[in-house]
Amino acid sequence: MRYAVLGDGKRIRPALAMASALAAGGTEAQGLEVGCAVELVHCFSLIHDDLPAIDNDDLRRGRLTVHKAFAESVAVLAGDALFALAFEVLASSCLSDSAKARANAVLSQAVGSQGLVGGEMLDVLSEGEPPKIETVRRIHLMKTASLISASCELGALAAGSGATVQSALGTFGRHLGLAFQIIDDVLNETSAQETLGKAAGSDRDRLKMTYPACLSIEDSLDEANGELAAALRQLEDVPGDTAPVRDLADYCVARDR
Amino acid sequence: MRYAVLGDGKRIRPALAMASALAAGGTEAQGLEVGCAVELVHCFSLIHDDLPAIDNDDLRRGRLTVHKAFAESVAVLAGDALFALAFEVLASSCLSDSAKARANAVLSQAVGSQGLVGGEMLDVLSEGEPPKIETVRRIHLMKTASLISASCELGALAAGSGATVQSALGTFGRHLGLAFQIIDDVLNETSAQETLGKAAGSDRDRLKMTYPACLSIEDSLDEANGELAAALRQLEDVPGDTAPVRDLADYCVARDR
Repeated sequence: MRYAVLGDGKRIRPALAMASALAAGGTEAQGLEVGCAVELVHCFSLIHDDLPAIDNDDLRRGRLTVHKAFAESVAVLAGDALFALAFEVLASSCLSDSAKARANAVLSQAVGSQGLVGGEMLDVLSEGEPPKIETVRRIHLMKTASLISASCELGALAAGSGATVQSALGTFGRHLGLAFQIIDDVLNETSAQETLGKAAGSDRDRLKMTYPACLSIEDSLDEANGELAAALRQLEDVPGDTAPVRDLADYCVARDR
Repeated sequence: MRYAVLGDGKRIRPALAMASALAAGGTEAQGLEVGCAVELVHCFSLIHDDLPAIDNDDLRRGRLTVHKAFAESVAVLAGDALFALAFEVLASSCLSDSAKARANAVLSQAVGSQGLVGGEMLDVLSEGEPPKIETVRRIHLMKTASLISASCELGALAAGSGATVQSALGTFGRHLGLAFQIIDDVLNETSAQETLGKAAGSDRDRLKMTYPACLSIEDSLDEANGELAAALRQLEDVPGDTAPVRDLADYCVARDR
């Protein structure tokens, strides 16, 4: 569990939760606990996605995946235990009872069959199918954008903001999450393994349904920038300091790993 | 997900949640939602435990395990999605916000690295080790008793009872869960596959650490009956109708499958 969580990741989700708490008019510190919960869910999902039965990846964050470093049984169970830990972290957080109840709803929906895990299932089922942009978009919204959206919405919730601001930051995160995943697709196609810290070109090898499988690299980047712009428009009526969340949004699209 | 949940299971955990709600002075119906959440967690754990990398079981509840009926990727992800669904069910239940917050804490702790999943990890790590009764007891308490205890505690919580009654029913469930698992061990050793609906004798084949690996069948049954008696003693100061929960407790120890 430690190996999977404490490696060299970008921590973009907890960073977004903390920046969203600030943007919602609270403090960054208020977003820390929900950000940790989201990062634990993210790490659990990476372990399971990397399993031989799913993506069969040997490298993650510049080192061996959990099932390669330990054993497949350990990878399945460490993932499960991290998933549980995410909810333990919410349960022991300093959120109010009503905020906890809402946070559990947001996080469980973001992960479940209509969110991250459902998106992973669609992704697996779509391998080798003729690429269709509507399907890729749906997979990316479920698999990636749902948890990034939850990060931002939970940050706003933890900052004590009302439903309108929570919803604006959730929608911000949804657009940003889609942009983030399009960039992931492009980097998988164009980067070197040393830069990425994981296998490059693997999506193409596996006939994964990605943006570059449907569109040119240039058009994919245009789509990502369009989603980024849509995300940033959501910040217009948000009451707090939006500079950090804007910086993170720019980074998500401009990054090279 | 449907295949795993809607098969021919005993539903002992939701039955205990509902009976515990009644024993706590509420109605059986009050225990239904928390019982569903616990059953979903139980089903998720069975799918993952049956995986080739863990117990490698082909049969469960009289038919093919999920990874045999579908695919290993489906089994991993269906388990994950059921885990999320358990928390979605709690989130959308009619519990009060404070009861939801507590229920999330109880359920996540019962599942995590100090509960069910941690027990499964210990179980995997102990295969082939010299059997020790202290280790078996610890594995069973974590792997089985923690979730059965949570079923009973959550039933009492959902019925609106106070901390003392919740705790009494949780302790009842802990003893009963240990008794239940000892009987499982004995049945695995003494029953036929047709009766069990899953592979018989598989614990011995796999050098699993079980009660019958440490004690005689007779002494194992004595231990189970001792735990049953300890469980029933917890019901003395419980305010509601304890007849159904007593019947279920007796069934857990007297069952033949």
